[in-house]
Amino acid sequence: MALRWTLVLLLMQLSGYFRSGTCGKVLVWPTEYSHWMNMKTILDKLVQRGHEVTVLASSASVAIDPSKTSAIKFEVFPTSLSKDDVDSSFKKLFYTATYNPSKDTFWSRVSQMEEIMWGFSEVVRKVCKDAVLNKKLMTKLQESKFDVLLGDAIGFCSELVAEILKIPLVYSLRFSPGSVLEKNGGGLLLPPSYVPVVTSELSDQMSFIERVKNMIYALYYEFWFQGYNVKKWDQLYLEALGRSTTVYESMKKADMWLIRNYWDFDFPHPFLPNFDFIGGHHCKPAKPLPKEMEDFVQSSGENGVVVFSLGSIINNITEERANVIASALAQIPQKVLWRFDGKKPDTLGPNTRLYKWLPQNDILGHPKTKAFITHGGANGIYEAIYHGVPMVGIPLFADQPDNVAHMKAKGAAVRVDFNTLSSTDLLNALKTVINDPMYKENAMKLSRIHHDQPMKPLDRAIFWIEFVMRHKGAKHLRVAAHDLTWFQYHSLDVIGFLLACVATAIFIFTKCCLFFWRMFATAGKKEKRE
Amino acid sequence: MALRWTLVLLLMQLSGYFRSGTCGKVLVWPTEYSHWMNMKTILDKLVQRGHEVTVLASSASVAIDPSKTSAIKFEVFPTSLSKDDVDSSFKKLFYTATYNPSKDTFWSRVSQMEEIMWGFSEVVRKVCKDAVLNKKLMTKLQESKFDVLLGDAIGFCSELVAEILKIPLVYSLRFSPGSVLEKNGGGLLLPPSYVPVVTSELSDQMSFIERVKNMIYALYYEFWFQGYNVKKWDQLYLEALGRSTTVYESMKKADMWLIRNYWDFDFPHPFLPNFDFIGGHHCKPAKPLPKEMEDFVQSSGENGVVVFSLGSIINNITEERANVIASALAQIPQKVLWRFDGKKPDTLGPNTRLYKWLPQNDILGHPKTKAFITHGGANGIYEAIYHGVPMVGIPLFADQPDNVAHMKAKGAAVRVDFNTLSSTDLLNALKTVINDPMYKENAMKLSRIHHDQPMKPLDRAIFWIEFVMRHKGAKHLRVAAHDLTWFQYHSLDVIGFLLACVATAIFIFTKCCLFFWRMFATAGKKEKRE
Repeated sequence: MALRWTLVLLLMQLSGYFRSGTCGKVLVWPTEYSHWMNMKTILDKLVQRGHEVTVLASSASVAIDPSKTSAIKFEVFPTSLSKDDVDSSFKKLFYTATYNPSKDTFWSRVSQMEEIMWGFSEVVRKVCKDAVLNKKLMTKLQESKFDVLLGDAIGFCSELVAEILKIPLVYSLRFSPGSVLEKNGGGLLLPPSYVPVVTSELSDQMSFIERVKNMIYALYYEFWFQGYNVKKWDQLYLEALGRSTTVYESMKKADMWLIRNYWDFDFPHPFLPNFDFIGGHHCKPAKPLPKEMEDFVQSSGENGVVVFSLGSIINNITEERANVIASALAQIPQKVLWRFDGKKPDTLGPNTRLYKWLPQNDILGHPKTKAFITHGGANGIYEAIYHGVPMVGIPLFADQPDNVAHMKAKGAAVRVDFNTLSSTDLLNALKTVINDPMYKENAMKLSRIHHDQPMKPLDRAIFWIEFVMRHKGAKHLRVAAHDLTWFQYHSLDVIGFLLACVATAIFIFTKCCLFFWRMFATAGKKEKRE
Repeated sequence: MALRWTLVLLLMQLSGYFRSGTCGKVLVWPTEYSHWMNMKTILDKLVQRGHEVTVLASSASVAIDPSKTSAIKFEVFPTSLSKDDVDSSFKKLFYTATYNPSKDTFWSRVSQMEEIMWGFSEVVRKVCKDAVLNKKLMTKLQESKFDVLLGDAIGFCSELVAEILKIPLVYSLRFSPGSVLEKNGGGLLLPPSYVPVVTSELSDQMSFIERVKNMIYALYYEFWFQGYNVKKWDQLYLEALGRSTTVYESMKKADMWLIRNYWDFDFPHPFLPNFDFIGGHHCKPAKPLPKEMEDFVQSSGENGVVVFSLGSIINNITEERANVIASALAQIPQKVLWRFDGKKPDTLGPNTRLYKWLPQNDILGHPKTKAFITHGGANGIYEAIYHGVPMVGIPLFADQPDNVAHMKAKGAAVRVDFNTLSSTDLLNALKTVINDPMYKENAMKLSRIHHDQPMKPLDRAIFWIEFVMRHKGAKHLRVAAHDLTWFQYHSLDVIGFLLACVATAIFIFTKCCLFFWRMFATAGKKEKRE
C-alpha cells in the first residue's frame, strides 16, 4: 500500500512537472548579499524542476560562491576589480550608514541611500562593462541560446545583456529608492496622495503635512536623485548596443517584474499586469534546530525565547552598543539567541547566547519564539511574518527604517533607534511586544494573509519565468504606455491641443460678438443721426 | 486498482475542499440575462464546494428561474413590477439599439448605451427599493447571518444590501460604461493616453487624433454621462441607511472586484490589489454534440462548419436582414449552424441549418469549427478565445462593437455592420477569417494565453469569495485612496500649498531685493550729493 501511495505521489509530481512544458535554459545576472540569497531560492526551484540554470558571475563576486552550489552552472568572467575591492567598498558604505549619528531625518537617510546606491552602481557598472564588452563571452552566451534572462532590477545591466542576447527578461526586485525603477522602467503610476514613498517611513494613512512631505520626497526622487548615475549607464548602453538608447528604454522591454513584496508587508497600491508580488517566496516551514540550540530553547520553559539578528552584512557592532543591548537582554525572563561575531559584551546575561550564525527561519518558526529583534531587512521581516512573530526593529540603513515603519503601522512591531537606544528603551520595547497580546495578534494576522494566497509566492515566480520561456516573452501583459513619451503619457499634448481649440473657439466667438456689436452699434448711431 | 484510484482522487478532492476552511453562507444580488448566466457559473461551483447559496430574486425576475436550479436557494421578494414589465422594457431598449440606422458613431452608440443604462437602472432601482425597504425581508436576511454578499456591480443595490446586513461584499463585473464604476467606486486610475475608453472601439495603440478622441470620451463619461442616474440612487441610499451617503461611498467598501476580463481580451492597464480578472471563467471543454448535430457537422467533411449566433437576447431579426445573411452563408463551402428563431429566410442554402438553441460552447470546441459569426457579446467571444476560433463580428449594441474592436485589434476577427452589410460583405469577411491562416493563428495565440494562467479564472473567483468569508473581508487589499476626497486624491491641496509657499518665498525674496536695492540706491544718491 505504501509503495502504491509513493507511486501515486510520484505520478502527481510528474504530471505537475510535465504541465509546465519542456525544460529551458535560464541565464542569471545576479546581485550580491541578501539579493543573491533571494535569487538562489528561485534558482534552486528552477533546477529542481529540471531547468538548466547558468549564473553569469564576475571573478570579483563576493556572495556568489560557485563551489557551494553544484546544481547551478556558473559562467565566471574576469573583471578588473578584486573580491576585496567589492566587499570592502560595500561594507564601508554600510558601516558608514550604520554609525551615522544624524540618521534620524528623511534627508540624512536619503543622502546615505544615495551614497550607497552610487557606490553600488559604480561597482556594478565596472563589472557590467567587463561582461558586455567581452566579445568572447557574449558570443559564447549567444551560442548557448538561453530562453530567458533573470536579473535583479536593482543593479542594472541585466536588461543590457538580455538586449545583446535578444532573449526575454524577467526581473526580480525588492524595491528601488523612491520606486524610480518601477516608475520609469516598469511604468507604475503611484499617486503620492496615498502611496508612501519608499524610505519615507510614512504609512498609507497620511495627514496633510505628511502628504506634503510625501509629495516633496516623490519630487526629489523623480528629479534630483542621482544614486543610479543614470547618464553614465546610458553611455555604456550606447557603447554596448551601438545605438542611441537609455537604461529606462531597455528596462521597459522586461516581460515580468517579480516584486519581493506583498500586501502583508506593503500598503496596497496600483500596479500593472506584468507585475507579480512574490514577497516571502524564500520562507519555508521550520526545520528542527541543532540539538544544542534546541536544548537551550527548551530550557526557556514557559517564557520562551527571543531571536536577535542584525542581518547577513552586520555581524559586529561597537563594544559600547553591544553592552547597552546585552544589558537590556539580561533583564528579560526569556532566553535570547543573538547572532553576533564580536567581542563578548561584559554585560551579557546568563540567559543570552551568542552565535556566529543562526538558522533564523527555523528558530523564528519554533513554537517557543516570542519575539524577533531585527535590523528590519526584508528577508528577516518576511520570515517573522511567515511564522507570525512580533518584532522589535533596530533599523540601520537603506530600506530598513521604512520596513520597520511598515510593521509598526500594521501593529506588529516596535521601533528603537540603534545609535541612541538605552538599555531601558530596548527592555521596554521587548516587554511591549511580548506582553501586549495585540502585537502577537497582528503578527498572526499578517501571517494568515501571507499563507492564504491563491498560489504560493515561489510557485508564482516559477510559473511566470516558465511562462516567459514557453511563450518567448509575455508581450500581452505589457502596457502600451511604454511606447509613449512622458508628455504623451500624461496627455500634455492632447490637453494643450484641446485648450488651444477652446481658446480659439472663445477668441472667434468673442471676435464675432464684437463685430456684430459694433455693426449694430454703428447702425444704431446712424439711425439716431437720421 | 480502479477503486483505489477513485479513492485517491476522492481523498485529493476532499483535501482541497478542507483546505478552503469551513463552508459558508453566500447571499447573491443577481442581474438579468447573460449577467445571471455568468453569476450562475460561480454559484454552481460554490454549491459544489459545499457552501449554502441564497439568491435574492424579485418576483419580476426574467432570467432567474428558481424551478430550474434545485441546489441554489431562492429568497423571492414581491415587487410592484411584473415579469413582462421588466422583459419588455429591456427588450424594447435592445431592439431599438439594434435597428438604429445611425449607430456607426461613438456618440450614437453612447446615447444608445445611456438610454439602455437609464432604463436598466430605473428598473433595478424600483426592484432595489422594494427589497431594501421591505423590513421583514431585511430582518430575515439579517437573522440568516450570511458570510458574504456577491453582486454584479453593473446594477447597483448589492452594496446597499451589504451595508444594511453589515456583511462583506464581493463584486463580479464585466465592465461599466466608460469604466465609471471601476474608477469612482473601485479607485482605478486609467490614463486616457493608452487605456482606450470602453465603447470607444479604440485599441491601446492610438494616434494623436485617437488620443484626443479618447480624452474627450473619458471626459464625457466622467462629467456628463447620466446613464446611472446616480443622484436618484443616492436618495434611495439615504432613505434606506438613514444617513447622508452616496452610491460610490458604498461601492468603495467592496472587498473584491472580480472583473470578467483578462489580457487575452482586454488591453493591459493599471489595476489595484483587490481586482482580479476572471474573464472566461464560464468556459469549459466541449461536450459531445447531440447526434443529429454531430452528423450534420461531420457531413461538412474537410471544409468544416461555421457557427452563427447573435446571443441570448436577439433570437430574431428582420426578414430583409435574414435574407441578406442567409444568401451569404449559402455561398460558402462550409456547413452553417445558425441560432435563429424567426421565419425561415427564402435565400437559405442547403448548407445552413437553423436552431432555436445551440450548445454554443460545445460546437465552438468541435474540431471541425472554422469560424464563429457573433454579435460580440463577451461570453461568446470568450468561448471563441477558449477554443481558438476566429470570428466575424456583427456587433449590435452596448459593449459589443468595442468587444469586436478588441478582437480585430488582436487579429482574431473581422467586423461587418449589421444594418448596412451586403451578402458580399459577409461572404468576404467569412472567406478572410477562414482562409487567411493569420486569423486562426491569432485566435490560437489568445487561446494559449487564456489557458496558461497561474490558476484557472473560476478557481480564482472561488478563492477570493472564500477568502472574504474566511477573513470577514479583505481590508489588506483596499487602497487608502478610498479615504480621500477627489482633490486630496489628486494632491490638489498639496500642490496648491506648495505653490503658495513658492509664491510667498518669491514675493519675500523680491521684496527684500527691492528693499535693499532702494536702500543702496538712496545711499548712492546721498553719496553723490555729498
